[in-house]
Amino acid sequence: MQGTSEILEQAIEQLAKLPGTGRKSARRIALYLLKQDEEFVTKIADALVNLKKKITRCSICGVISDNDPCSICENVKRDGTKICVVEESQDVFLIEKTNEYKGKYHVLGGAISPLDNIGPDDVRIKELMARVNNDEEPIHEVILALNPDSEGEATSYYINKLLKPFDEIDVTRIAYGIPMGTELEFIDEATLSRAFASRNSF
Amino acid sequence: MQGTSEILEQAIEQLAKLPGTGRKSARRIALYLLKQDEEFVTKIADALVNLKKKITRCSICGVISDNDPCSICENVKRDGTKICVVEESQDVFLIEKTNEYKGKYHVLGGAISPLDNIGPDDVRIKELMARVNNDEEPIHEVILALNPDSEGEATSYYINKLLKPFDEIDVTRIAYGIPMGTELEFIDEATLSRAFASRNSF
Repeated sequence: MQGTSEILEQAIEQLAKLPGTGRKSARRIALYLLKQDEEFVTKIADALVNLKKKITRCSICGVISDNDPCSICENVKRDGTKICVVEESQDVFLIEKTNEYKGKYHVLGGAISPLDNIGPDDVRIKELMARVNNDEEPIHEVILALNPDSEGEATSYYINKLLKPFDEIDVTRIAYGIPMGTELEFIDEATLSRAFASRNSF
Repeated sequence: MQGTSEILEQAIEQLAKLPGTGRKSARRIALYLLKQDEEFVTKIADALVNLKKKITRCSICGVISDNDPCSICENVKRDGTKICVVEESQDVFLIEKTNEYKGKYHVLGGAISPLDNIGPDDVRIKELMARVNNDEEPIHEVILALNPDSEGEATSYYINKLLKPFDEIDVTRIAYGIPMGTELEFIDEATLSRAFASRNSF
């Protein structure tokens, strides 16, 4: 016998399923919640349930959103001639934080990964091509902002190939290189070699 | 504008209230939950709500428990002549894990701390004395297992003083010293000096 409360053990077991939370932190969280008032805990629980019950995906760009279409796709002030292609919704939020980009997005929902049995049809590439082929809003630039790993690279190459026939579309890619504020000695070889290959005139 | 989902932001805000969870981990958890099916998320939410709605405290020993009295206080096989005094319920679970102790417990719900305005009446010392004074089940040993900090020390001294008049009660204290499996060079001075002061014949 380890405890006097099965309910506490169940809460710990459930909390331990969260990413980055082991049994020890799960126990600490559960005991912390026990000390809070009921409203505090109910608010957290409701917020979690709402995540699944109320959030949808934008049928245009695929980002997770409370409304369909999402606030970015609906925003007429944003440049509809540019589409930035990312793997996941959180990438959209990260790019939005920079305030650097005022175009639209397309969330693939992953990257092509033959080893994981994820082919081109398992990510939203067809939907991207449908947007490109739609004459209502001509696209002039597709910016690839996928992760700098082999899956992201493969997906970028695949999309680039599909977009080749469209002469009016520039396919660009965000720059990969040395992150700001670091020193060269802390940079891995792959990043450094990429930074050299992508060097610009000063 | 940072996101396209107010509901997601709310979930992140709520999750960030959990101990040990900053906004970054809260975001990671929320996005992870979004990818799970609804049952997975509902189970976690229900377990949290049950924590507050269904868990009670044992009216005898004060441990958090699904039933009152708790399974330890109700267990007739446990030695009712011994009471181990701890600060929090989790201490009971930790001691239970060792399988070393077969007596009963008393959870104070904290320790005396004048700086935090916590006096003897704010922790369950009166309830402990009521158990000691209850003639139905005579107590022969009170084991103090409080935290080895100034609050725990002060509380231990205070309880020891209250129990002095009871000749039939041994007041003991768990041993504080070098933790098992460590090397002396990694031990802080206070622990080492305590270990010396509490040395036993070999």
